[in-house]
Amino acid sequence: MSVGQRITAVRTLDVRFPTSRELDGSDAMNPDPDYSAAYVVISTDAGDGLEGHGFAFTIGRGNEVQTAAIDTIGSWLVGRPLAETLDGLGAVWTELVHDSQLRWLGPEKGVIHMAVAAVVNALWDLRAKRAGQPLWKLLSDLSPEELVDLVDFRYLTDALTRDEALAILRAAEPGRAERERVLRERGYPGYTTSPGWLGYDDEKLARLCREAVDDGFTQIKLKVGADLDDDKRRMRIARDTVGPDIRIAIDANQRWDVGPAIEWVQALAEFEPWWVEEPTSPDDVLGHAAIARGIAPIKVATGEHVANRVVFKQLLQAEAIAYMQIDATRVAGVNENIANLLLAAKFGVPVCPHAGGVGLCELVQHLSMFDFVAVSGLLDDRVIEYVDHLHEHFVEPVVMERGAYRAPTGPGAGAEMHEATLARFRFPDGAEWAEGQA
Amino acid sequence: MSVGQRITAVRTLDVRFPTSRELDGSDAMNPDPDYSAAYVVISTDAGDGLEGHGFAFTIGRGNEVQTAAIDTIGSWLVGRPLAETLDGLGAVWTELVHDSQLRWLGPEKGVIHMAVAAVVNALWDLRAKRAGQPLWKLLSDLSPEELVDLVDFRYLTDALTRDEALAILRAAEPGRAERERVLRERGYPGYTTSPGWLGYDDEKLARLCREAVDDGFTQIKLKVGADLDDDKRRMRIARDTVGPDIRIAIDANQRWDVGPAIEWVQALAEFEPWWVEEPTSPDDVLGHAAIARGIAPIKVATGEHVANRVVFKQLLQAEAIAYMQIDATRVAGVNENIANLLLAAKFGVPVCPHAGGVGLCELVQHLSMFDFVAVSGLLDDRVIEYVDHLHEHFVEPVVMERGAYRAPTGPGAGAEMHEATLARFRFPDGAEWAEGQA
Repeated sequence: MSVGQRITAVRTLDVRFPTSRELDGSDAMNPDPDYSAAYVVISTDAGDGLEGHGFAFTIGRGNEVQTAAIDTIGSWLVGRPLAETLDGLGAVWTELVHDSQLRWLGPEKGVIHMAVAAVVNALWDLRAKRAGQPLWKLLSDLSPEELVDLVDFRYLTDALTRDEALAILRAAEPGRAERERVLRERGYPGYTTSPGWLGYDDEKLARLCREAVDDGFTQIKLKVGADLDDDKRRMRIARDTVGPDIRIAIDANQRWDVGPAIEWVQALAEFEPWWVEEPTSPDDVLGHAAIARGIAPIKVATGEHVANRVVFKQLLQAEAIAYMQIDATRVAGVNENIANLLLAAKFGVPVCPHAGGVGLCELVQHLSMFDFVAVSGLLDDRVIEYVDHLHEHFVEPVVMERGAYRAPTGPGAGAEMHEATLARFRFPDGAEWAEGQA
Repeated sequence: MSVGQRITAVRTLDVRFPTSRELDGSDAMNPDPDYSAAYVVISTDAGDGLEGHGFAFTIGRGNEVQTAAIDTIGSWLVGRPLAETLDGLGAVWTELVHDSQLRWLGPEKGVIHMAVAAVVNALWDLRAKRAGQPLWKLLSDLSPEELVDLVDFRYLTDALTRDEALAILRAAEPGRAERERVLRERGYPGYTTSPGWLGYDDEKLARLCREAVDDGFTQIKLKVGADLDDDKRRMRIARDTVGPDIRIAIDANQRWDVGPAIEWVQALAEFEPWWVEEPTSPDDVLGHAAIARGIAPIKVATGEHVANRVVFKQLLQAEAIAYMQIDATRVAGVNENIANLLLAAKFGVPVCPHAGGVGLCELVQHLSMFDFVAVSGLLDDRVIEYVDHLHEHFVEPVVMERGAYRAPTGPGAGAEMHEATLARFRFPDGAEWAEGQA
């Protein structure tokens, strides 16, 4: 690398897809989402043609606020030395998250935290591209010491210390090469939510359930929580269609209070749901724990709206979740998700990431693959959510084979969208919106 | 009121005070805050000259993001019928907080939630002005049924149901008039943080402690957590200055992990701290509970960064806090703080609001006074934070008499700043910034 190379520009775009027109993505709390990305591109003067791409995922209104937050944080990077910045992403993360004035807007939650996610993920994308490696491989080749330097252990040490994290990573080190071989050969298991949106009719539900099994998935997921009778009918259709051996997860998207959650899930128990996801407020650690006790042996999963590692820590401490559903852009990007993977490994809880949306599959697969190679070392009961939706907009779209994510081989972190997509879906002036029904 | 009157405009301003130049407000996590307001003004065509004023408090960088979020939410109000909107603030709150797309940016936390706070508080300000009453009086005259209609019980019912809230309010109803008389006569007790900022030297600390006692305060607060030896020296100076009968609270501003919090507070126990505030992450319910057990009989207080009523619910359920420190602009405004007051009353925990900053005293006093008249009915162990700072910028500044907040008599919710202030401190183009050192 040359001396003097710098980050020269951080550009943002408000990109929205009019998914509400088709009721894709409809659930009990999100009847009409327009999947959106507050998108960021980091440019340099390195002359190698490489840029870092990242985004925060939202579902429409407010994406302009998310974009404004990324503008604020992104502007801090302009002019920084390129190599030092990319080689010191632990320090960069700490600086962005703990800035003494900005943290008032969170702290470590919501818009300002997702803005850090977008920027941090874009920096990782750029680092991986410069290394010529997919992110999962780049992370999997870092030493345990380099990995713990990426993690902020503040507020975690009552559950996970730096030394404990090092021990977890060192224990996984000898098996890295073999697991990388397995990963490249077989991919990483996925499950599909495509059949289960509330906006679909029964015929479409049954057809998509059949297709999921035909495609090799061993787990599907149904949205629930709007109407119990509807849920029973849809669960019966799904169970009858896929048979007893396919796992059916259910997802309430925060619809219930604690008591009603227990009652509702118990009323669906005859259909053997594999897990119930987001039964109540994502902030309610004690509520999730009460629900977990109330619906056992059915398991609780959550995470797509869990604001940060401190909340995940408590969900594990309270035995409130049996599955941790990390999201690539909700917490502050790759670094914080390494913390989450380490917490899950410490507590022996499988990580089954939230994905779907737009681009979340492309991003989060790298984290699960890294987890398998270098952290937990396990695939047992671990699946990445998959939704067959909007992948065509990405330069490196995910590839599914027999229900598994094929390990990406192209360089980067997966966030880069085609230029034509960015132009067409830019809000409000892209052709899709200027010409569309919005 | 006339038929057809509408909200005609919602205007925002990014207002910042260069408080970092003097190290006022310095603590272990916020070394150099610039107290700021993402300010909002709601106008109507009623022709009565009345506007609704509100704001979200921040500490500088990022105030433009907060302002952008208020723009997004405020724009929804333009064109709405005035009377129906102001008479239905429960429904308005629910609509703004639970909008199916916007809630992705929280949910119910951070920038988007504080934006709702600013707008909701401005609507309450306008309603109170139109009624010709201070907000505390307006709220105190509502019926129990009207009050519970303002509260969203979603996610609360495992701790507090609507019926339980009604019972609390009805039990307090017979004593309202007598307590209002007491309030108008004696005011509401305050405590002062003015002596305790970390940036002040020992001489200034001692002088301000003396002045606090002379001014009639029975409780002061010191910032701690940067250096234990410094904290011991400063606590000794404070205790020697104020004597054994004045309560000294300490405030760590989230500085510690769980274990270190317990050790640090125990090391200060000889100086008899009344409470320790924000010992760790505001998201760490279980951590606060562990600290509370570890430092008993010293008490734990928190709240200024508690994102919403769901987290407060858990802090109470876990017996993690002995004092609830509501903030006027952190949660989604007046409505959510009514929920917090009701939760505190249910659990028998005193509410001692966070204030200071800019305008937080002006706002939050109304909530404590309402609590005394119509909710808990108690003053025992209840004090509102007071910092002698920036009050001159408000049209209705707080008035302190012998350590107590005098009950406001002017109409409104207290948020309105002088036009000259808004012009001078507008960022970045107001005279203070254009001419200043920033």
